[in-house]
Amino acid sequence: MSASTARLKHFGWGREGEGLTAEEEAFVLARAEARFATKLKESASAPALDEIKLHEPRVKAPASLPFATCDHYDRAAHTYGKSYPEMARGLVRDYGNAPDVVAYPRNEAEVAAVLDWAGGADATVTPFGGGSSVCGGVEPLRNGHKGAVTLDLREMGKVLEVDKTSRAALIEGGTYGPALEAQLRPHGLTLRHFPQSFEYSTLGGWIATRGGGHFATLYTHIDDLVESLRTVTPKGVIESRRLPGSGAGPSPDRMMIGSEGILGVITQAWMRLQDRPTFRAGGAVRFKDFFAAACAARAISQTGLYPSNCRILDPTEAYNTGAADGSVAIMVLAFESADHDVEPWMKRARECCADHGGTPEASGAEAHREGAAGVWRNAFIRMPYAMERLILRGVVNDTFETSITWDRFEQFHDAIKSATENAIVEATGRKGQVTCRFTHVYPDGPAPYFTFHAQGEPGKLGAQWRIIKGAALDAVIRNGGTVTHHHAVGRDHRPWYDRQRPPLFAAAMRAAKKALDPQGLLNPGVLIDP
Amino acid sequence: MSASTARLKHFGWGREGEGLTAEEEAFVLARAEARFATKLKESASAPALDEIKLHEPRVKAPASLPFATCDHYDRAAHTYGKSYPEMARGLVRDYGNAPDVVAYPRNEAEVAAVLDWAGGADATVTPFGGGSSVCGGVEPLRNGHKGAVTLDLREMGKVLEVDKTSRAALIEGGTYGPALEAQLRPHGLTLRHFPQSFEYSTLGGWIATRGGGHFATLYTHIDDLVESLRTVTPKGVIESRRLPGSGAGPSPDRMMIGSEGILGVITQAWMRLQDRPTFRAGGAVRFKDFFAAACAARAISQTGLYPSNCRILDPTEAYNTGAADGSVAIMVLAFESADHDVEPWMKRARECCADHGGTPEASGAEAHREGAAGVWRNAFIRMPYAMERLILRGVVNDTFETSITWDRFEQFHDAIKSATENAIVEATGRKGQVTCRFTHVYPDGPAPYFTFHAQGEPGKLGAQWRIIKGAALDAVIRNGGTVTHHHAVGRDHRPWYDRQRPPLFAAAMRAAKKALDPQGLLNPGVLIDP
Repeated sequence: MSASTARLKHFGWGREGEGLTAEEEAFVLARAEARFATKLKESASAPALDEIKLHEPRVKAPASLPFATCDHYDRAAHTYGKSYPEMARGLVRDYGNAPDVVAYPRNEAEVAAVLDWAGGADATVTPFGGGSSVCGGVEPLRNGHKGAVTLDLREMGKVLEVDKTSRAALIEGGTYGPALEAQLRPHGLTLRHFPQSFEYSTLGGWIATRGGGHFATLYTHIDDLVESLRTVTPKGVIESRRLPGSGAGPSPDRMMIGSEGILGVITQAWMRLQDRPTFRAGGAVRFKDFFAAACAARAISQTGLYPSNCRILDPTEAYNTGAADGSVAIMVLAFESADHDVEPWMKRARECCADHGGTPEASGAEAHREGAAGVWRNAFIRMPYAMERLILRGVVNDTFETSITWDRFEQFHDAIKSATENAIVEATGRKGQVTCRFTHVYPDGPAPYFTFHAQGEPGKLGAQWRIIKGAALDAVIRNGGTVTHHHAVGRDHRPWYDRQRPPLFAAAMRAAKKALDPQGLLNPGVLIDP
Repeated sequence: MSASTARLKHFGWGREGEGLTAEEEAFVLARAEARFATKLKESASAPALDEIKLHEPRVKAPASLPFATCDHYDRAAHTYGKSYPEMARGLVRDYGNAPDVVAYPRNEAEVAAVLDWAGGADATVTPFGGGSSVCGGVEPLRNGHKGAVTLDLREMGKVLEVDKTSRAALIEGGTYGPALEAQLRPHGLTLRHFPQSFEYSTLGGWIATRGGGHFATLYTHIDDLVESLRTVTPKGVIESRRLPGSGAGPSPDRMMIGSEGILGVITQAWMRLQDRPTFRAGGAVRFKDFFAAACAARAISQTGLYPSNCRILDPTEAYNTGAADGSVAIMVLAFESADHDVEPWMKRARECCADHGGTPEASGAEAHREGAAGVWRNAFIRMPYAMERLILRGVVNDTFETSITWDRFEQFHDAIKSATENAIVEATGRKGQVTCRFTHVYPDGPAPYFTFHAQGEPGKLGAQWRIIKGAALDAVIRNGGTVTHHHAVGRDHRPWYDRQRPPLFAAAMRAAKKALDPQGLLNPGVLIDP
């Protein structure tokens, strides 16, 4: 049950044949050229498949694993995730870390067989999910071992069982977003986990990376939607019980959720579902500035109303996506329910906005698809395609997301923004642009999401990115934030994660990993060193 | 900042001078005698302090720890928690496992000093919280080591810092419920974590045991209210960042939450707070039977309305507490908010009840203190005092709580109830009584809470309890439940926890413990063997 017949691109976002329309690209390019006050010429090209030179496999797929391959496309397409530095390396045709073997197991026994074989062959094993990692989480490093195998669970994409009474389903780890929702739809159920990468990411990947999804409040991460997990480790299977809630010791699931493939491969999960919503209220609200919008977001987050959407965009972010003219900040607000009219909820949230000078742009059941909210939503979905086009024109463009308590937010925002702006000048010699939005809000603080744009120098893009992103994350860590709110740690964020994470927790995790993966073969270098 | 000037009883529930009134005791006794159709005579007496013989301390409190003592009262009062078998052992004056030393550190440095000294003296260390454990979680076992030290954090009871903007506070681990709320009240804030043991339990204890609290939905456990933790381990301090949300690796806090004192001592926590509610709606609803009430509870749990209370009592449970006449099941329903009128929420919940034949008993802002709801609430708070009186008359009485998905609930309920009823006959030769209520409900299932009553034989109470509780937990585990929803595992539940918990998760936890507590001194035998 594949999500689509087209195969994933070996370079860039999405599947073969997908990308920006000419119109979309013209819009994005015009905005970028205006931003840098210069024409941006294409100075590089995406690597064609036959331009990519791969080393000879150091380990080969054995006949006992007929679902494993050493084919050129498979190895090239599994060399990288979708982070900016990975794209920059792809542009210069650096495919030195291509996996030797890509395995597509069709069931849990085949996952275990790969782990067994890799243990004997001294090959590392990197679970791939949908490969949409934006933090260097799926590059199949060898880390001193003989070979590197990538495990792609795309053949394990079935909803195996649906429990309508408890609103839960048992779903295979390799299930892509669209296939997952398609299989739940006949039952009137939905997971409602819609990350930006929805079409190109899998349930197992969402869980392994603590992915953030649709809900701006309450169920912000996949964590709370997990009822139980089945994970294959080199030492065997860990399966937790289906329980609505438990207080029996530390949660076994919470050890696996966010483990980014270093402890095991998530093959199945019972997930908590929702009825498909039938009541909606929402719309965009304009504010004179970002901090006024933040105050309104704080007020709403502390009401106990739990909107499904409560995202704010700073004026430049709103302008860049076409959602506003650059003079106002925007809040995208929505409530939804399968049970009851949510207008009383929306009414109270609108009052919170008005208290902070917010003026509604539109209202009504379908407002979330219209006006500023709709424009922004579409731009959000298409954004990753833009990066793959702009990098060819030497643009250094990336995002990072964090969280901070409300009391520190304004100072934090200014510190991160100016550190990133200064680093852009340092790295490129020119001014760039840093924007901010909130993706999620909690009663105790927001999750600010920053985007930066710089005009880089072809051939130096990776190094320039490193200076900018490094300075940004330095500022995040120094000012008390988290290195990632929902993009995961991977390898790109490791140095800052190491500063954030309590050292003794690292010691405990290393010991736990040793117990489950004694050879240290699973995704080495992610989160901890073996 | 002590919660009270009276000291904790050395035997029984609460502080010295507290207990049932004569009127309450007469009510409880009458109900019990009617249940067993016999007069219940007092056949035992609570041990007076001077009747308790303690062994000579095998390790002594050194002069360097002036806050540690070997005094008789302190050692006797810290020998047991409040579980039934512990009381039964107290009745027969079995104080063989009294701690050698009880330490009352006044700050984190003194906690660390105790751990250091205990490491050198080869003594185990058991964090005590408020000692209200009902699962054998605080008995200071030596486990082959030379001595046993109990760590009582009652002198660390301060709210250190309040962040009104983010609605959070930094609170010391030894803070008792009433002192915690008293210190938050001037700020208009509340933790709203009100377990049955509220007056005799501490923040650190709630976190270490994944305590369940006030909210019947959504924030059911303390887990979600923890913003960050500071824990002292034998290897040093683990401190997590104050973050509203994070996706950076597995949560370090989630390793400590529920660790029941085996990994470290929780000295401080930043806790997420609420504004004090000003809007309320609620009342009791009557149903013809328990399963009809359960269907209504399921419907409400899946609406997204999130009532603060949605507890149901079966007819016998309702009768025993005086909340109804035994012919009907009762639902206690309440909404609360500091922000908005909750009548629209209550109205919709009432419709869900009506769909399943529920008829409201009363309604209005203060209904939760009146009628069946109020009677039940009071009986709930006073229940532990009843146990301490009834055990003197040979009653074997205990509770156990679990959770199960909705699809399995009715079969599960009947299996657990009949297994427990049969075990009562097996253990005592007489019929007893098993009742059920829901304490918490989730969209995917309820948390059923069972109570059993049996007429035991003085001198054999512990053994009879073991047969009944063992059969009950066998049935819980066999039928897919959790060994505990919010009472923790301790030592009483270990054999069944071992069957529930994935073996490889135990291996990972053992490795993690070894990294933090290499000598295996912290609360040995709880959750895992070192």
